[in-house]
Amino acid sequence: MTVDLVVSPRIRKTPFHESTVKAGATAFTVYNKMLLPLTYGDLAEEYRRLTEGVTIWDVSVERQVEISGPDADACVQYLTSRDLSKMKVGQGKYVAMCDHEGRLLNDPVLLKLHDRYWFSIADSEILFWARAVAAERGFDVTIREPDVSPLAIQGPLAEDLIAELFGEWVRDLKYFWFDEAELNGIPLVVCRSGWSKQGGFELFLRDGTRGNELWDLVVAAGEKYDIGPAAPNHVERIESGLLSYGGDNTPDSNPFECGMARYVDTETDVDYIGKAALQQIKAEGPARLLVGLVIDDGTAGTDAWPLEHCVPVLQNEAEVGTMCAIVDSPRLGKTIALAQIQTDVVEAGLPVEVTSPDGLLTATITALPFI
Amino acid sequence: MTVDLVVSPRIRKTPFHESTVKAGATAFTVYNKMLLPLTYGDLAEEYRRLTEGVTIWDVSVERQVEISGPDADACVQYLTSRDLSKMKVGQGKYVAMCDHEGRLLNDPVLLKLHDRYWFSIADSEILFWARAVAAERGFDVTIREPDVSPLAIQGPLAEDLIAELFGEWVRDLKYFWFDEAELNGIPLVVCRSGWSKQGGFELFLRDGTRGNELWDLVVAAGEKYDIGPAAPNHVERIESGLLSYGGDNTPDSNPFECGMARYVDTETDVDYIGKAALQQIKAEGPARLLVGLVIDDGTAGTDAWPLEHCVPVLQNEAEVGTMCAIVDSPRLGKTIALAQIQTDVVEAGLPVEVTSPDGLLTATITALPFI
Repeated sequence: MTVDLVVSPRIRKTPFHESTVKAGATAFTVYNKMLLPLTYGDLAEEYRRLTEGVTIWDVSVERQVEISGPDADACVQYLTSRDLSKMKVGQGKYVAMCDHEGRLLNDPVLLKLHDRYWFSIADSEILFWARAVAAERGFDVTIREPDVSPLAIQGPLAEDLIAELFGEWVRDLKYFWFDEAELNGIPLVVCRSGWSKQGGFELFLRDGTRGNELWDLVVAAGEKYDIGPAAPNHVERIESGLLSYGGDNTPDSNPFECGMARYVDTETDVDYIGKAALQQIKAEGPARLLVGLVIDDGTAGTDAWPLEHCVPVLQNEAEVGTMCAIVDSPRLGKTIALAQIQTDVVEAGLPVEVTSPDGLLTATITALPFI
Repeated sequence: MTVDLVVSPRIRKTPFHESTVKAGATAFTVYNKMLLPLTYGDLAEEYRRLTEGVTIWDVSVERQVEISGPDADACVQYLTSRDLSKMKVGQGKYVAMCDHEGRLLNDPVLLKLHDRYWFSIADSEILFWARAVAAERGFDVTIREPDVSPLAIQGPLAEDLIAELFGEWVRDLKYFWFDEAELNGIPLVVCRSGWSKQGGFELFLRDGTRGNELWDLVVAAGEKYDIGPAAPNHVERIESGLLSYGGDNTPDSNPFECGMARYVDTETDVDYIGKAALQQIKAEGPARLLVGLVIDDGTAGTDAWPLEHCVPVLQNEAEVGTMCAIVDSPRLGKTIALAQIQTDVVEAGLPVEVTSPDGLLTATITALPFI
């Protein structure tokens, strides 16, 4: 479902906004107080291109929280529940940021540049939080939102296109690694990353005045690959089990409840916010788990849009969790869903039921990712 | 201008959502990651009712950040750049929350209940920030977002309606003062407040399951006053010079640049975040000022919608500021605007020019509020 959104200065436009409108963006969401185009009118075709060809996404809403200065290493580590002691310049890592009680605040990709760090953030305000911690602890750092806006090139043909634009060296980039580069003098960071499992890169634009120029250059070079505009894809990301922070979890979820256990280092010597709380949660076991559901019979019935809001998951008529996303998967030929299940009440091995727009559906709990 | 917004679990619905849809809400914004209805299809009629009668607004998006516990007094004071030492239980205060460098983070109304505080916040994430500060400083407090959602009753007839619902005692409430009350057993806080200068109250609903019931009770009682659904009114709030945090200011604005000088106590003995920075800014004078503009000739030309984004303010062809809101004022019979002006480059007494959808307009700088 969509509603009319009033565009106003409080909700920022991206450096690629004009290009996305020209390319035919038909629906948006608001993410980090910025307009994020979600579709260009044909979600099925966008999915096909993402899984078979190459697509271009305006993901400027992944704002960067930049930390630099003498104490940058110490500050960034303190803000991150993952041991960064072996992190190299040019490397990115998917990390959990938690508060002092172990609640997940964000799940950014952290990039270590030669003189600064960028947290490429999901939909929550990390800038205020990071500045508060740094100031209260006396870290000698500068924390700001720089003029940096990611443009994602995603799909199996993305590597060929990016190699054509930047050179063969990009083929050697490992996942989440990056390098600084230019295109027609436009300053960029080229990173092998993106919110899909179809392969691809993110071009971190470092000059917001040149967004439409960058868009046009990529689209022109991508013509021979039949590139098309698209966006973070609701169906593909559920097939791939990618977390939508704030969409799949509740505000009090910890990373163990969000499928992020392997991004929390509880055995490390380094200190970080929430470490004691996270150690305790790990020892006791999380109260909820993010799982997949495979629907036995029935369809998502949502016209390819997200659910409007989460719905209960039932077992023997008792509520055992919450389902926040359900889609018909073209590649699996099944209807699948993401749910947070209460570990202490759910009976493993037994089916559950979810209320969908099509009525009550029976489902089997499964591990993530689906594909 | 509006665009299509995809409704999804990441953007919350309010406890009054169903009622607002039934009442005919036609356009929304996203505010604190929640749907805020902005109009019911006739902005001129909503303005008339607000200034002459009584209106009901779903302002649940004013989320509460609740602070309780042994150190609540000390913690709340430390988070607020206003001397709270004389604040009484039952009193509310409009306050500035600033970071350690004096940047304005939010402009909430703070309510002091008998056992807790509520910051009724504008559009920025204060929960993470407040928790970080409290944890790092060792305050013994609990900070959470409670199940509290304000419903505003605004307009010159609001007092009669609220008195009818709750009793004559509400007429004695001073501005921003409040008391706890019930309506049909629905737990509430009744406060003389609201984001207009037309008089009115906010009912802080303390049970989110009873939002539509509360809405219906108020509307039924309000029938004889010809109550109608409305929303924070873009025209009225500009006439009244009310700040739209994030809309009128930039992320690095300090409160002196946002017309909030009298809410910053720099001479007090109490300590709070950003005090030294704010003292210095006050001593040096702010770099920008929020001012009014009266357009000499021409109209807002925006069909009563907000500007899509801010535009430059020029003087002798040089940029001297930014205009982020312009409207045609029914009560003044003039076109008026809000702008941030650079104090070191603008020449007082000389006209400025702004680019509007109707072309270049000449304007005179004036103090706020207009009315």
